[in-house]
Amino acid sequence: MFKLVKLPLRPATAAVRNKGTSASSFNRAMSARKCSPKSADRLSTLDPSGTVFAEFTGLAIEHNAVNLGQGFPTLPVPEFITNAAIEACKDINPLHQYTRSEGHVRLVKAVSAFYSDKIGRTLDPLTEIITTVGATEALYSAIQAFVNPGDQVILMQPFYDSYPAAITLAGGVPVMVSLTPSKPALSSADWRFDINEIRRAIVPGKTKMIMINNPHNPIGKVFERSELAQIAAVAEEFDLLVIADEVYETLVYDDSSTPLIKFGSLPGMAERTITVGSVGKMFGVTGWKIGWCLSTPEIIRSIWMVHQYVPFSVVTPLQEATAVALEKAMTNDYFERNVAEYQSLRNKLHGMLSSVGLTPTMPQGGYFILADTTSVPDDAAADPTERRRDFRVCRYLTKEAGVAPIPVSAFYAPEAQTGEVPAQLARFAFCKNADMLDRAGEKLASYGEKEH
Amino acid sequence: MFKLVKLPLRPATAAVRNKGTSASSFNRAMSARKCSPKSADRLSTLDPSGTVFAEFTGLAIEHNAVNLGQGFPTLPVPEFITNAAIEACKDINPLHQYTRSEGHVRLVKAVSAFYSDKIGRTLDPLTEIITTVGATEALYSAIQAFVNPGDQVILMQPFYDSYPAAITLAGGVPVMVSLTPSKPALSSADWRFDINEIRRAIVPGKTKMIMINNPHNPIGKVFERSELAQIAAVAEEFDLLVIADEVYETLVYDDSSTPLIKFGSLPGMAERTITVGSVGKMFGVTGWKIGWCLSTPEIIRSIWMVHQYVPFSVVTPLQEATAVALEKAMTNDYFERNVAEYQSLRNKLHGMLSSVGLTPTMPQGGYFILADTTSVPDDAAADPTERRRDFRVCRYLTKEAGVAPIPVSAFYAPEAQTGEVPAQLARFAFCKNADMLDRAGEKLASYGEKEH
Repeated sequence: MFKLVKLPLRPATAAVRNKGTSASSFNRAMSARKCSPKSADRLSTLDPSGTVFAEFTGLAIEHNAVNLGQGFPTLPVPEFITNAAIEACKDINPLHQYTRSEGHVRLVKAVSAFYSDKIGRTLDPLTEIITTVGATEALYSAIQAFVNPGDQVILMQPFYDSYPAAITLAGGVPVMVSLTPSKPALSSADWRFDINEIRRAIVPGKTKMIMINNPHNPIGKVFERSELAQIAAVAEEFDLLVIADEVYETLVYDDSSTPLIKFGSLPGMAERTITVGSVGKMFGVTGWKIGWCLSTPEIIRSIWMVHQYVPFSVVTPLQEATAVALEKAMTNDYFERNVAEYQSLRNKLHGMLSSVGLTPTMPQGGYFILADTTSVPDDAAADPTERRRDFRVCRYLTKEAGVAPIPVSAFYAPEAQTGEVPAQLARFAFCKNADMLDRAGEKLASYGEKEH
Repeated sequence: MFKLVKLPLRPATAAVRNKGTSASSFNRAMSARKCSPKSADRLSTLDPSGTVFAEFTGLAIEHNAVNLGQGFPTLPVPEFITNAAIEACKDINPLHQYTRSEGHVRLVKAVSAFYSDKIGRTLDPLTEIITTVGATEALYSAIQAFVNPGDQVILMQPFYDSYPAAITLAGGVPVMVSLTPSKPALSSADWRFDINEIRRAIVPGKTKMIMINNPHNPIGKVFERSELAQIAAVAEEFDLLVIADEVYETLVYDDSSTPLIKFGSLPGMAERTITVGSVGKMFGVTGWKIGWCLSTPEIIRSIWMVHQYVPFSVVTPLQEATAVALEKAMTNDYFERNVAEYQSLRNKLHGMLSSVGLTPTMPQGGYFILADTTSVPDDAAADPTERRRDFRVCRYLTKEAGVAPIPVSAFYAPEAQTGEVPAQLARFAFCKNADMLDRAGEKLASYGEKEH
């Protein structure tokens, strides 16, 4: 796709230099040239094949499968949220213009009110919060603000796919440590990391940052206080920044062994944690593209230095709408009703997967269930051109079972994609309306009755 | 502001390493540490003092001055545009979710329909257009996609302030050439560049790109075909990419000596031009934060490689609304009415500035008028702590005349900020409702009657 070959500089042609040339020789010279702009070297660190989501969305459409791949909700957006957007758009001017680059004032005030208790300190709306174009830009700008070429950043594998890309686009080096399931992993709590593996991964003077995702995508794990404290101690000892991507914070289920503990609320962590949040996940409106970082004034200022030249500011009318919705949600029990609705969808999908032998891991939080696909016969899903078993199996399930999941090796580094753990796993999203899950259930049931 | 000092790595303390330690020694160790995250080196290329817009907005509020600084419209947004936004927000699901990362399908189709005639070829909506978070992200992602550390990019000075920042954030080197006014410059057409200065600025193998802004901010110049052809010939000869920032394309006034000529429509330029457009400027809704790049499939694909990890996608409901508004605007004569309204505001501000001896340059396009401030006595605007005359004068005008402009040296490289040209100039925005301009007129008239 990308021409990374350095082309020799072409000499000027007479046609261009000599104003007296004829139009036809000029045109010949023009057509003889072919512009071939060489893209920047940083792009060679990215996977040029495109995202796994594009492949499985296409495959789902082709085979009329129920798409449980990408994690966007298909549930109706509650009226108090759409109404907030409609009202903001009725304004005839100021809400349609640039707002404060660091964040719309009404929104950062609401964000401060929402988090101050949870994070254990009063967040200054004007200096300790920045709004961003979704969590994606929050992660991108935070990494650009702190990661130099050659700096190392520790990630837990499996990881959300924009983490390593944002790191390599800054010239940084992602360093993987593993989250590993016990066998069987009936709960997402059965996935664990080894703090000694993290310690061994640290190169003093090179390691700049560690990224954690809690609740975790794709596993659904909600980290225990003792696990977070181990990470905090390492961050303290080696003076690391911590990005705490907590975008699924409002979706922790009532049978989780632990509530969500904000990493930034741990002793000593406020000063080195960048907490990332998402309106898309909080209100089920991924298309609004609004998120935020919470941190110290110094860290927020550095992130803003980048942000001011990336988007400059975030969509004004929907920042206003988010502020209104958040103010309401703090008193109208939206969060309780929302998590209860998701919990029932989770339970429904869990039952369906269990009943056809795609043994699910019960997630404590988030949008997704990992299922063990060992029961899918390897000869059924054979494909000599694909070395990753989970890709073979997920394509097979999309075509033959009529339900499209996402292969979990997409959340692993290239060298780990054929490893034992991702080989057996598929990720199914349950942030889908009940009708859609019912259709998936019917398809899975028919699949379960087939001979394999 | 930024700690760029490299701190020595701290040794692990016994308190952290030794699990058997007491809580109090642990707490002592914690409080003795202080996290001081060092921001990435790329931030040291940016001006840490913050933008000129923040200073003058603050100053205008403090002195109850009419703010003709920042270029956002205060005119009522036409109802067909706000209605399009309201209707999109009424949707209960899909329009609130992620849309296609490269651009919402209905919008890229409308963009193709709008531009294909103007740019002289049919743009493929799915491969030759990408939507972005305003023109700012378009510029940022395009530069990240093509500029390597050490690559040079040619800019015309004065420039829009995000150009050099986006270049240095990619590790590139902005190289300035000058737009220079004849004296007196009664029209923005009286500002010219010297193509030989551009040729001399090119370092073969190092120079990657040239950026042009047409209509030009802050000058208001609309480039003649002969001027653009000179740049095209140089781009062709040295195999340069061209970013054509044409965000003010729909605001070219009927007394301009030339219509807007899309750079990408020039012979041979389609294959090397990245055309940047802006919904904010097109529909007077700068807070929607939607823009786009038009180019070849290969170039758009490279920009998308960056874009997918910067915002991933652009706000869905307002992309839908933009598509609807653009479809309507192509038949409802909005663009004609809009440019006529701006032309009358331009003429009104031009008259006010003339009448108080702030000799204006009549702009051919855009939102701004440059005014010559030579008549402001240097002793009136004296400030020994400020070496830039135009900053002194603009602060003086904000305080004493009650109208806040922007000093033009803000659009020059640091070493050029005390030069003869910017020293005499102030930029006034006329994208303001008539009431606001009338108030500015009254304030300027009182100022004109004062003794200086």
